[in-house]
Amino acid sequence: MKLLLIGFGVVGQGLAEILRDKAARLKQEQGFSAQIIGVVTGSKGTLFLSDGLKIAGLLEAARSGSFVDYPEQAGLRRGLSASEMIAVGAADVLVEMSPTNLETAQPALSICHQALDAGLHLVLANKGPVALDYSNLRAKAQAKRVQMRYEATVMAGTPTMQLAEEALAGCAITSARGILNGTTNYMLTQMEGGLSYAEALAQAQALGYAETDPTGDVEGWDAAGKVIILANALYGASLTMADLDVSGITQISADDMAAAKAAGERYKLIAQATPGGGSVKALRLPLSDPLASVAGAANAITLETDLLGDVTLIGAGAGKLETGSAILSDLLAVQRNRGR
Amino acid sequence: MKLLLIGFGVVGQGLAEILRDKAARLKQEQGFSAQIIGVVTGSKGTLFLSDGLKIAGLLEAARSGSFVDYPEQAGLRRGLSASEMIAVGAADVLVEMSPTNLETAQPALSICHQALDAGLHLVLANKGPVALDYSNLRAKAQAKRVQMRYEATVMAGTPTMQLAEEALAGCAITSARGILNGTTNYMLTQMEGGLSYAEALAQAQALGYAETDPTGDVEGWDAAGKVIILANALYGASLTMADLDVSGITQISADDMAAAKAAGERYKLIAQATPGGGSVKALRLPLSDPLASVAGAANAITLETDLLGDVTLIGAGAGKLETGSAILSDLLAVQRNRGR
Repeated sequence: MKLLLIGFGVVGQGLAEILRDKAARLKQEQGFSAQIIGVVTGSKGTLFLSDGLKIAGLLEAARSGSFVDYPEQAGLRRGLSASEMIAVGAADVLVEMSPTNLETAQPALSICHQALDAGLHLVLANKGPVALDYSNLRAKAQAKRVQMRYEATVMAGTPTMQLAEEALAGCAITSARGILNGTTNYMLTQMEGGLSYAEALAQAQALGYAETDPTGDVEGWDAAGKVIILANALYGASLTMADLDVSGITQISADDMAAAKAAGERYKLIAQATPGGGSVKALRLPLSDPLASVAGAANAITLETDLLGDVTLIGAGAGKLETGSAILSDLLAVQRNRGR
Repeated sequence: MKLLLIGFGVVGQGLAEILRDKAARLKQEQGFSAQIIGVVTGSKGTLFLSDGLKIAGLLEAARSGSFVDYPEQAGLRRGLSASEMIAVGAADVLVEMSPTNLETAQPALSICHQALDAGLHLVLANKGPVALDYSNLRAKAQAKRVQMRYEATVMAGTPTMQLAEEALAGCAITSARGILNGTTNYMLTQMEGGLSYAEALAQAQALGYAETDPTGDVEGWDAAGKVIILANALYGASLTMADLDVSGITQISADDMAAAKAAGERYKLIAQATPGGGSVKALRLPLSDPLASVAGAANAITLETDLLGDVTLIGAGAGKLETGSAILSDLLAVQRNRGR
């Protein structure tokens, strides 16, 4: 399976490490082998070699900050754009892992459409295209008889989409509600332990959970993007961000936390998608709710189903190998489902 | 897809209801349609019609306690054995839902082998054959290029096996530990609320969770059968019941419960499967463990993985539609994976 990678940050490097470290086991147990034939980045440059780039060289050059340091090889081409790499026609799958833009989804969205037009399977960690243009991408993938997968966009490698779309295929899912942003869950856990909002934020930033500008996390927009993805995928909805009722955790005071505790409840930032719409809101949950016990940076989702009642999945929501493994899981599924 | 059902108790009737109620949706959304062409029971008789039995008639006759009441139809054959039905050669899948026997797995085990020999896919809710003869059944299914699936044997329709075997296919699973017996979890929850062991047992029996002879549940043997299945499926182990360290909840006193509570912990009957072996034991878990918050008759499992850390799945562990939906999920997977 020949891969074009768009983006080679934490997730891309995690994927490369996994492909390097698991090559033998994946070949033996799953009959799977993959080559990275192209990598496009915004800051490090681009590399293309239709026979397959060397993973060790990629990782080393990425650490140095520039693909200039990637060693020369016969046939190696530097500086090709994503469009040019797609046009070569050697790749099977485009893996879109560039930074999420929830306003325009560009430039990733155009690249995704080009990849589908060229008959490539599409695997995304980038939430933008899935949140903003799901139905067009889905329709194009179906018309081209290729697969579009996006496990990494919700709860990293914790297999939310596979659970909802395949394992629970016989059930109707009537609601999905979860803790889909690890940064705010970490902060709420710390605030329960007595920290103020500002202290919890500073700690989350020190640990690398929250960015310097934490708006996307603390005001609920990161989780909102995931609500859109879930609503589109589970219900065939065509929601946009403007359709959601979104608030974050910035208004929660120490007094609020204390009141919840006194009532035997716990604040959680709950992202919810139902056939009728979606929301992201800080809610007080009773401790008997499985979501209430999800602490720290973990993520979780409860799917309400017709036949099975509630099914809850708890796991990592971020991380290098955790998100890289979502891409691997999608690539394995692409292989399993080929030719269906 | 033509089905032979072995057993038509709660699970079989649940499956039949689901196939009846979801026929249109399954056809439209998944391209799936199934016919029940044969049903074999120990107490109600047997029915076979290669054009497909009427589900309404089956359910009505089952309620009356005997298939004698199933209406006559052209071509209907009464009294055929499972072997005779398999020999007709009309079925695609044998669904084994007869009562579990963890000592010999018979008579189900022979029927399973006959079905695989005849090239039928095999779907099981009966734990016996999977727990006692996994490697032979698996090898035979592979040789015959048919599928063997057993989602219903662990946590009913909560998709444990799909999670472990497909969704997490890229990860190595290093341990599985869970609450795999709902009866004992219900009892422990009630004992935490102040009931004695005897009172909790009486209540579980009154609610139909525990059988008149509760030994299989309270001494851990039901959970142990599931540990064997997990060990076989996840690690290719060839464990037998004798290899496991099994104890139940019968020794837990009110003082033990109080001591756990005072220490901020909770007793749970934890079933564990690792590459090195397995156990079923009542353990005190800290409240921060996601398994600690699983209350009542629910089941849960935590899979420890190399790439993703811990992934926890919480859901139903029993029930008519809950277990019937596991069979449906396996049948959908059989259809998805056909011809791979």
